[in-house]
Amino acid sequence: MRRSDIVVIGGSAAGIPAALTARQFYPEHSVLLIRREPQALVPCGIPYIFGAIGSTEADLIPDAMLQNAGIDLLVDEVTSIDRQREALATAGGEEIGYRRLVLGVGSQPVVPPIPGADKGNVFAIRKDVPYIERMLAAFDRASKLVIAGCGFIGVELAEENRRERGLEVTIVEMLEHCLEQNYDLEFAQTAEEMLRGEGIEILTNTTVEEIEGNERAERVRLSDGRTLPADVVVLALGATANSDLARRAGLAIGPLGGILVNRYQQTSDEHIFAAGDCAEKVSFFDGRPSPQKLASIATTEARIAGANLFALQRANPGTIGVYSTILGGKAFASAGLTERAARLAGYQVITGQAEAINRHPGCMPGGMSLRVKLVFDAATRIVLGGQVMGAESGGEMVNAISACIQQRMTADDIALFQAGSHPGLTASPITYQLVAAAEAAIATWLKERQATPAPV
Amino acid sequence: MRRSDIVVIGGSAAGIPAALTARQFYPEHSVLLIRREPQALVPCGIPYIFGAIGSTEADLIPDAMLQNAGIDLLVDEVTSIDRQREALATAGGEEIGYRRLVLGVGSQPVVPPIPGADKGNVFAIRKDVPYIERMLAAFDRASKLVIAGCGFIGVELAEENRRERGLEVTIVEMLEHCLEQNYDLEFAQTAEEMLRGEGIEILTNTTVEEIEGNERAERVRLSDGRTLPADVVVLALGATANSDLARRAGLAIGPLGGILVNRYQQTSDEHIFAAGDCAEKVSFFDGRPSPQKLASIATTEARIAGANLFALQRANPGTIGVYSTILGGKAFASAGLTERAARLAGYQVITGQAEAINRHPGCMPGGMSLRVKLVFDAATRIVLGGQVMGAESGGEMVNAISACIQQRMTADDIALFQAGSHPGLTASPITYQLVAAAEAAIATWLKERQATPAPV
Repeated sequence: MRRSDIVVIGGSAAGIPAALTARQFYPEHSVLLIRREPQALVPCGIPYIFGAIGSTEADLIPDAMLQNAGIDLLVDEVTSIDRQREALATAGGEEIGYRRLVLGVGSQPVVPPIPGADKGNVFAIRKDVPYIERMLAAFDRASKLVIAGCGFIGVELAEENRRERGLEVTIVEMLEHCLEQNYDLEFAQTAEEMLRGEGIEILTNTTVEEIEGNERAERVRLSDGRTLPADVVVLALGATANSDLARRAGLAIGPLGGILVNRYQQTSDEHIFAAGDCAEKVSFFDGRPSPQKLASIATTEARIAGANLFALQRANPGTIGVYSTILGGKAFASAGLTERAARLAGYQVITGQAEAINRHPGCMPGGMSLRVKLVFDAATRIVLGGQVMGAESGGEMVNAISACIQQRMTADDIALFQAGSHPGLTASPITYQLVAAAEAAIATWLKERQATPAPV
Repeated sequence: MRRSDIVVIGGSAAGIPAALTARQFYPEHSVLLIRREPQALVPCGIPYIFGAIGSTEADLIPDAMLQNAGIDLLVDEVTSIDRQREALATAGGEEIGYRRLVLGVGSQPVVPPIPGADKGNVFAIRKDVPYIERMLAAFDRASKLVIAGCGFIGVELAEENRRERGLEVTIVEMLEHCLEQNYDLEFAQTAEEMLRGEGIEILTNTTVEEIEGNERAERVRLSDGRTLPADVVVLALGATANSDLARRAGLAIGPLGGILVNRYQQTSDEHIFAAGDCAEKVSFFDGRPSPQKLASIATTEARIAGANLFALQRANPGTIGVYSTILGGKAFASAGLTERAARLAGYQVITGQAEAINRHPGCMPGGMSLRVKLVFDAATRIVLGGQVMGAESGGEMVNAISACIQQRMTADDIALFQAGSHPGLTASPITYQLVAAAEAAIATWLKERQATPAPV
């Protein structure tokens, strides 16, 4: 029987950093990474394979990272885990012993039981080179694309196929607005305007009822009765954890279907860890189960799992959820709770917004507007979330906001944020959006306090 | 006698936010801002007036900000403060009563007693429109510029005048490297390479001994014996606090010559506050006097002063110092202590560095390398500083680093930083530079720990 001290299953955003972290913390132990796919796609890059990236080969995670760190790689599929013997069996017929195991086996796209979803030219987004190649071939022959689901993958795929391939694109969304889970109304509406401005049709408050046609998709019938012509259909309706392998091994499964883990990413077997899309998550804010699935969450969890294998050293505070994308050349980023999500969670909130050119004075070359919204708990004034849209630097500003959330900073802390500024890089320190949004929230709070009668 | 509840002296990075914050916290009180200059220049924009901005008119702070907030503006020079009567006298003959006073009177450039420094065509950087206009006129007739001092103003002025005006530019620096106060060797050397690549000459380890010529500067003689032809000379050698007015009013002055303030920005007279370049500062790290002078520090101090005028509500944790600039199209940013500064201050340090393209995969359009260095206290693993160079998004990433420093985050906290990532905006979450630099520092720490014998 082959043996490795540490075995990691999965070669993407969870598996790679889990293996790298394990090597770093436990250099005396051997690490074997097993992945099913001969080639691993950069998951966030997949929508851009249809446009800016142009091919699957250009969207591969280089194996050199593993080799350079002295991590062994096996391309094979693990079919079962024998926890008693601490050994794995693979489809290739290998048996592999482990002392510690990390499951980073990811997720797969949700495919609801829509009649016709099994027809040709109906796709979900699978992180698999041959599958994406089949999609590309179908898209090459298509002119009318219907996308079900207006989340990040949906809008990114829509834009790339519209702009780079000239397809007629319609997105169908059950909710009232695009990206509604991650942006408040004013941000979501701006995103929709950008997309519509590029010629993408967006139909909200409706769902795909049936995909019609013979062998291949020809039409999509919606719940509101409309029918759309389509020669290619993509279902971008979220993902579910790959928890089968764990379930069959008798590991506990969480309420949302992921592999149950504690704060240290240990499953119900303390020698087996899980990280990334396959692992159940809890919210940073209230510890409740969280459905978020993001490569950036996966890497954080993997760094926790990898460090904890033989001695607990890192704990997971729960997921904040930091999202970013570009639509119509504008960055749209979001961290933590939107105002809507915070209210739904029972918070009383105060928000503050600020907008300024990301240069000062505004005539400096390369200037673009950047708008920030911050969401605070009205009682404690602790920041719960933030949204950014506009200049590309917003993609990093949201990380400063994420730091504020992680550290439970208050509006006053953020108002006194010591930010760097430069004419060619940022707004002036007087109008710097992050600080100005916090001050705007404080202004609202002060006004409300002045309007509130003193307690009796 | 004219009266205003709140009087702010100074109309720049301290005065404006102090007045705005005062309005916000104390809307029932009148606010009068008095400034000497008919027009207020955006201070950080001054080097760019010689290039990208092109004129003083394009670099003015709009007075609309004050008007919209209901702040009265008086252009006049305050000549004395009568603390007993709580009243000011002005050069224009006014007497103005106050209940609370904020001094945001800034700094002036250091002009050392170099023989010839009083000749025509020898300038310092004064935040004054007519003065800058005279500089522009002199630069229009010049072909050879010598700049004494290779700090931020020196390098920015050098680059703008080289690139936009085609001047022959030489910078003379006393220290071993450009920007040495804010960047470690590898970053400073890269900055020097960029500047030299643009045809700017940099002479380090030497100083200006004498400016020779008749009425106007014609040559600069250096301490190493060399002589440089020059038809215009700029002294960019730092700034000293404008503390004369305060000193004459009997207010205490700090060890570095600034107006002494407590954590609430109160001077030795509790009704008088000071903020910005004129105020003495202490370091965030050890509470010792800090010579840092930055518009971003001024705005933070002003937000503290403005909020505290009638009731203490905000405290100054001390200055971190967050700097950024662009040289040769690359962002160079720095927050907190460099490795060198940390060692000089007596810390044992561990550093970590990471470099990656700010896109993923790297072939995504617009990609540019971005390198991060983090400096940690070896004992507590708390982050002390960070430097960033490369892509423009570094100008915001340094603010995420600043948040980590402000919150005294450890290397492990930063390794678990929940950062957003997107193919078109950032590196992948696996190689994200901020997190990867923290992990690199931890790797060093782990190796050192393994190499250290256990305590007896």
